[in-house]
Amino acid sequence: MGSSVTRRTLLRSIGVAGGAGVMFESMRALGLVASPEALAVPDYRAPRPGDLAAGKRGKRVVILGAGIAGLATAYELGKAGYRCTILEAKTRIGGRNWTVRAGTTETDLDGHTQTARFSREESSYLNAGPARLPQSHITLDYCRELGVPLETFLNANANALIYNEATGVAPQQYRTAKADMYGYVSELLAKAVDQGALDQQLSATDKDALLTFLGGFGAIGGKASGYAYTGTSRRGYAVEPGAADQPGVVLGPPPSLSQVLASQVGRYFSFEFGYDQAMTMLQPVGGMDALPLALYRAIGKDTVRLGAEVVRLTDTADGVEVVHRDTRGRQTVERADFCVATLPPHLMAKVPSNLDPAVTAALRFPRPSPVGKIGLEYRRRWWEEDERIYGGITETDLDLAHIWYPSAGFHGRRGVVVGYYNTGANAQLYGDLPPAERTKRALAQGVKIHGEKYRAELASAFSVAWHRTPFIEGGWVGWPSRTSGEYALLNRPAGHVYFAGDWLSYFIAWQAGAFDSARHVVTNLHERVLAEG
Amino acid sequence: MGSSVTRRTLLRSIGVAGGAGVMFESMRALGLVASPEALAVPDYRAPRPGDLAAGKRGKRVVILGAGIAGLATAYELGKAGYRCTILEAKTRIGGRNWTVRAGTTETDLDGHTQTARFSREESSYLNAGPARLPQSHITLDYCRELGVPLETFLNANANALIYNEATGVAPQQYRTAKADMYGYVSELLAKAVDQGALDQQLSATDKDALLTFLGGFGAIGGKASGYAYTGTSRRGYAVEPGAADQPGVVLGPPPSLSQVLASQVGRYFSFEFGYDQAMTMLQPVGGMDALPLALYRAIGKDTVRLGAEVVRLTDTADGVEVVHRDTRGRQTVERADFCVATLPPHLMAKVPSNLDPAVTAALRFPRPSPVGKIGLEYRRRWWEEDERIYGGITETDLDLAHIWYPSAGFHGRRGVVVGYYNTGANAQLYGDLPPAERTKRALAQGVKIHGEKYRAELASAFSVAWHRTPFIEGGWVGWPSRTSGEYALLNRPAGHVYFAGDWLSYFIAWQAGAFDSARHVVTNLHERVLAEG
Repeated sequence: MGSSVTRRTLLRSIGVAGGAGVMFESMRALGLVASPEALAVPDYRAPRPGDLAAGKRGKRVVILGAGIAGLATAYELGKAGYRCTILEAKTRIGGRNWTVRAGTTETDLDGHTQTARFSREESSYLNAGPARLPQSHITLDYCRELGVPLETFLNANANALIYNEATGVAPQQYRTAKADMYGYVSELLAKAVDQGALDQQLSATDKDALLTFLGGFGAIGGKASGYAYTGTSRRGYAVEPGAADQPGVVLGPPPSLSQVLASQVGRYFSFEFGYDQAMTMLQPVGGMDALPLALYRAIGKDTVRLGAEVVRLTDTADGVEVVHRDTRGRQTVERADFCVATLPPHLMAKVPSNLDPAVTAALRFPRPSPVGKIGLEYRRRWWEEDERIYGGITETDLDLAHIWYPSAGFHGRRGVVVGYYNTGANAQLYGDLPPAERTKRALAQGVKIHGEKYRAELASAFSVAWHRTPFIEGGWVGWPSRTSGEYALLNRPAGHVYFAGDWLSYFIAWQAGAFDSARHVVTNLHERVLAEG
Repeated sequence: MGSSVTRRTLLRSIGVAGGAGVMFESMRALGLVASPEALAVPDYRAPRPGDLAAGKRGKRVVILGAGIAGLATAYELGKAGYRCTILEAKTRIGGRNWTVRAGTTETDLDGHTQTARFSREESSYLNAGPARLPQSHITLDYCRELGVPLETFLNANANALIYNEATGVAPQQYRTAKADMYGYVSELLAKAVDQGALDQQLSATDKDALLTFLGGFGAIGGKASGYAYTGTSRRGYAVEPGAADQPGVVLGPPPSLSQVLASQVGRYFSFEFGYDQAMTMLQPVGGMDALPLALYRAIGKDTVRLGAEVVRLTDTADGVEVVHRDTRGRQTVERADFCVATLPPHLMAKVPSNLDPAVTAALRFPRPSPVGKIGLEYRRRWWEEDERIYGGITETDLDLAHIWYPSAGFHGRRGVVVGYYNTGANAQLYGDLPPAERTKRALAQGVKIHGEKYRAELASAFSVAWHRTPFIEGGWVGWPSRTSGEYALLNRPAGHVYFAGDWLSYFIAWQAGAFDSARHVVTNLHERVLAEG
């Protein structure tokens, strides 16, 4: 184990034992002050060429699944000379990291076949699975290491809309909703402070500082006005300012405090404060699959057998034996020193094996989630041209949940909007429909926000229901409990078999979880090999 | 005048007369409901080829200045066949729209010559003047019309820092500062609501809705905890979550309410709510000068005489006469039917002319602002590699004011950071120093935030003091008053002379102001020509 991993482990144990305050003092003592963000990056020591005894051939590792966890495992083990083979049941790599483009074809478990009819512009794609990368995630380190070009992913946009159909309020821009909510919140708190209602909590100095903050935060009036919020240009303009005698006409007047509260717009504001969702977010240029493709090239395409479905796994006295079947039904036996299984746990549980029944039971424990997404390609980028929405997300209480506008290809001829990205019952509802019906429903919902052009200008659509996708069967999994033993059990090797995937991390549904899980397994497997000499 | 301009004028007069509420009702009556944003886009009817009488040659227009206003004037008039000539005193087009790249050379009014030593990577540039485009501005319409590719400009970033030296608090990330301030604000307001302190303002329904909002907005505890804010992962992590037994350690504990208020971090939060500063912001790929270059190509390079300084302007009985001098001192007389003068007003005031003294006095009325900017090229992108800051702006109370991290070229070999972007006394202070001293001072300040690497890893620097830049002499201007007559006077033609520029709009220091001012002049001039037959 590298000294840097030791450092992380040390810090973590101090943190657990003494609380974060003690940990920070310890970090200062260790000379680790710099920026907190720098500290937050996990340490990892990749296996290196010189690690294994010279002249000895690297151990053989068979990896099940060519998603991010599987590819990353092969990539990291390959650095020290391990001989890896990846068996992938699908006829493509990437797993849920799947970019749909012109010509992409897929048949789901219900027998529905779709072929994407998107145009061939660089930005005309749907990232059907992961689509955004937070700054903090190690996924970015892989993009850097592998030379995958990145650009901004717009996870928030003041011109994107909020629409709560249940409240009967028309769609409005985030900028307007925020101006009103922050304005009234500031007015209310300033009034309370001024009345002395919070004198137990606030010193006179605190009160001055807080009133100064609220004045700017809410753009409210001063004491004489009762700190009144009356609307400002933060809401937007009804008539844009311009040259000469055109100062602009601010959008207004704002609705009343009661109306703003009843509209429930504020429930979407905190999304962008989330550790993993706060801007800056990034995406690979041209589609998320640039990342698995870069890994694929790095490990050598011969490392991967596509269309190879695992039909039996046997942990033997000195290794593993994996029987797999190709798309023509021909079976092959693969023998290796170790196996790293990265299939979704609910599918891994179904693979016949001699694993301990407790392991198989543990694999059945996490619950797969239904998740759906649709890409709608339009004949023109009306959201930019007509509504001046450049990227970002419209939030709704409709069954489509979110509408995403593309973060790249601005002013291009066409563009792909994510017309729904939903989970749970909504994903089930859409997934149960044949693809054409899903499109129809998504359009009928979107029309409520953007009007008839939302239907009229559509060029083509492609949808995915992850829970109905062969060899994946879920968007991600959830653990009913992480402390009841199953999670810990699967994070340990079962004989010569290791498990890896985002589901074995605290970053579920993020590629960073798959990468870190692969690192965890690679580190443990490599240590074992080195210890065995 | 096109019918759409009439619509805008109509709406504006309704707005002025009856207030915004009346205006909205009027808009509804006119059937203009759609999205507010669509309404906010100014209407403009560009001159068209068929507008002028067939067989007649287009009127001649001499334009002073090849900045955005001058180029846009030539571009719009050219659409109907006007014969334009632009006289530009500098030996380059663009005016303040100036992208500094490897090899760019400039000598300021104090005789300091700088040559940029940036690397030749596509993203290694400094947009010395305008650098960001709001979604709402007509500048984007020109980018679309002219085919200028756009990408995101990151005007806000949760990982960028806030540093108020005067408070003695160490730099902290926006995400942390926001989590704490919004947490405590929510706690305080929830307490006040719960105590009944705001019962005059809030119904029982309002109170419930507000408490629900505050729970999410501040990530605070429930009633039982006194709605306490105790910190969450929104602050960031001391140890990043990861695989297996790594749930992460949240950064904490948060400072006290008094400490948060005293740190004055909250004063920077409202910047991103501003109508013109809220994300999404955009930038042309490869540098802001892609826009003037596209206009330059569209109007034909022969239209522009570079190095042509205006030395006399005469408004004659039937047109204008402009004497200009080339870089070798040779004088030429240019005669035209009209002149559109787009020089900065304080420089235009100095051009000998027969303009009414009231016009010249009015030109002297707006005050130029000192503005400075420095580009610091680093040998590696340490802000991404070490601190996981991908674009955005660090705000400070230092004399450098802001630090901008590049919005493109992520993971590139090098990168250019804006090391200061300041105005007023700070711009004066830096502008008074020779370029090498400016760099030294900027580094000494930046080291306080990012440590020694901020100095050690520098490759080269290039700074601009706009108030000391020949033929420009200011970052922008401010009007002591817009209602005392001067502003209105200059927005009308003085004989055959029209004035245009961002300074004649309500978008000062934005290119949109220059574009809309050009449109205003083009519309008026074209109407006059059509009326005169």
